[in-house]
Amino acid sequence: KVKKPLIHHITNVVTINDCANVTLALGASPVMADEGKEAAEMTAIANALVINMGTLSERTVASMLSSGKAANTNGIPVIFDPVGVGATHFRLQMAKQLLNAIRFTVIRGNISEIKALAGLEAHGKGVDAGDTMEDAATVAMTLAKQYDCIVGVTGKQDIITDGDQIVEINGGHPMLAQVTGTGCMTNSLIASCCAVASDSLTATVAGIFVMGRAGEMSYQSLQAHEGTGTFRVRLIDAVSLMDLEALQKGGTIHVHETHH
Amino acid sequence: KVKKPLIHHITNVVTINDCANVTLALGASPVMADEGKEAAEMTAIANALVINMGTLSERTVASMLSSGKAANTNGIPVIFDPVGVGATHFRLQMAKQLLNAIRFTVIRGNISEIKALAGLEAHGKGVDAGDTMEDAATVAMTLAKQYDCIVGVTGKQDIITDGDQIVEINGGHPMLAQVTGTGCMTNSLIASCCAVASDSLTATVAGIFVMGRAGEMSYQSLQAHEGTGTFRVRLIDAVSLMDLEALQKGGTIHVHETHH
Amino acid sequence: KVKKPLIHHITNVVTINDCANVTLALGASPVMADEGKEAAEMTAIANALVINMGTLSERTVASMLSSGKAANTNGIPVIFDPVGVGATHFRLQMAKQLLNAIRFTVIRGNISEIKALAGLEAHGKGVDAGDTMEDAATVAMTLAKQYDCIVGVTGKQDIITDGDQIVEINGGHPMLAQVTGTGCMTNSLIASCCAVASDSLTATVAGIFVMGRAGEMSYQSLQAHEGTGTFRVRLIDAVSLMDLEALQKGGTIHVHETHH
Repeated sequence: KVKKPLIHHITNVVTINDCANVTLALGASPVMADEGKEAAEMTAIANALVINMGTLSERTVASMLSSGKAANTNGIPVIFDPVGVGATHFRLQMAKQLLNAIRFTVIRGNISEIKALAGLEAHGKGVDAGDTMEDAATVAMTLAKQYDCIVGVTGKQDIITDGDQIVEINGGHPMLAQVTGTGCMTNSLIASCCAVASDSLTATVAGIFVMGRAGEMSYQSLQAHEGTGTFRVRLIDAVSLMDLEALQKGGTIHVHETHH
Repeated sequence: KVKKPLIHHITNVVTINDCANVTLALGASPVMADEGKEAAEMTAIANALVINMGTLSERTVASMLSSGKAANTNGIPVIFDPVGVGATHFRLQMAKQLLNAIRFTVIRGNISEIKALAGLEAHGKGVDAGDTMEDAATVAMTLAKQYDCIVGVTGKQDIITDGDQIVEINGGHPMLAQVTGTGCMTNSLIASCCAVASDSLTATVAGIFVMGRAGEMSYQSLQAHEGTGTFRVRLIDAVSLMDLEALQKGGTIHVHETHH
Repeated sequence: KVKKPLIHHITNVVTINDCANVTLALGASPVMADEGKEAAEMTAIANALVINMGTLSERTVASMLSSGKAANTNGIPVIFDPVGVGATHFRLQMAKQLLNAIRFTVIRGNISEIKALAGLEAHGKGVDAGDTMEDAATVAMTLAKQYDCIVGVTGKQDIITDGDQIVEINGGHPMLAQVTGTGCMTNSLIASCCAVASDSLTATVAGIFVMGRAGEMSYQSLQAHEGTGTFRVRLIDAVSLMDLEALQKGGTIHVHETHH
């Protein structure tokens, strides 16, 4: 087993620093290289790859494609975050192109993004688009079967599925939605777990659970004069301090077998 | 009225994370999409647009132009920050191109930048260029009339004008100049206010005042071993905790009618 | 002497904000402009230039080349950080191209990067590549003589040499390796010192020593619930509060004359 996995990110410029720091906080190593002339080569020496559409451009889409293919060829897990995929035609087209060319291990997004990917109607209003979570499990199942991968829908309640089992996490904290990058950081945690675990479903649950627990710990540490700025800093603190005892105080995880 | 406005930013890669987080801290939603193939489409679903020249490139100038035009067509307020416009010929040319193609709602900068835009002599030494504020009001008036917009000059003293009224804010804290991005974050606050207020002059004053007050609150919270790093975190804290009571303890606002 | 030097950075998008803030924390002014149409012009008005390969692309390599040449022409010190140079062929090629075209004042990296530049075998595993420091001095000397510049190798122990004298710093804290950007921030500190000091060896030692001392101060300030997130914030705090008294409590500096 790899002790300190290298996690290659081709990700957005808004939260790229948070992704690097949360990867380090968990004990893995981040690398961010999105130039087409080296992206695939960097992926080939990595233990997991994150592809995040946050601020994608034509230049980075090309790197995502070459890196994703290199990951598939080398048996390296690939995590896909279709940020704001419902918001513009370009995003939807690029997401489809990536889905057609790359076999993803995990797709993680909010309910609007997962709906948009599944071809369902979604009212995408940027990256913070909200929706009811009631049919999240159904949509996630559809997408997981469609692309033979793990699908994680994060929100007030998290749903993770391999198209067969459905895992439901209740935990986290609403303030996680008041800072940017908590979804992106969750990708890094999932990727770090996928790099060292053979079971991608469990790895995805672990990554999402750790971020939720970090949110709870961060919130609990806040004093009266501290708000979302300190909350964001303490999220990284919490991941860097995370241990079994801290995890055991976290939210609940329910596993549902589906009969299909 | 929009409850949680979407603020589209085409901005620099240095402070883009701060802009996203301060937008969320105020209760609005940020989106950052600078790819030419989607920028205008993203603007069309937003409630305000920020154009910031901090790390502009030929690629992003094209997106600024298409987004700015989309904003004008759709009646969406546009905030322009001509970062370091006096420092290079490229910046001045691009600023002029943007000013010719887009009708800005608000232009916000420091005194050197506003002078450079107004065609006056300014000793532009990068983005931190300083100058006396004594003639700030005159220069701001000139520019506001020239482009029929609100002009905000931020510094030790802030001057905001629509070319008719002049509003003067005394407040804030010198430490705001010791962290990067406080100007950029002010743009996000102004844009968020413009998205929900019909009076752009008032919205600009509100955005600038909130950042100044956040600076005061952040500084007051610092302990002996805390410096500019913690100050920056607490700025976001302060915006996220800002309420009427906190605002009332802030600096002074003076309104001058000009007779022209 | 320049009082508040302007430090131009062409650097990666992961830690660019940290570089700007640490530059301000030390009392210098940062500017980040990587567009080819203005990079060289910006360099010409700066007091030092940092070239960092972290997320280099073909676009930014061109700007690094033009800026580096402008710096050489104008007698402006240039600091080079060959981030992850051993990891891909593209990085090694670009590093060689930069080294052939630009006369660097200081090259700073970890032992793997310095080895790779010196043409020696190095097991480059991304940007966090480790290696024993025992032969660091020899490799640094080789590279310093090869390119007639200062070479700084940072790690558990720091080695700085001009090819003649060897300076060894013992200090800092292991947590500096658990947040991203501490190397990049060290470049900014070195550049700020080079901008105001005529002796580049001393300036490099000063920059590296300040970052190490900041690491010690930051770690000492942490409470039980604070981890790498707060550590990163307090690094900037420490630099902004750094004074002679704080420096004197720092690690040890040994100077070795070599007989060649």
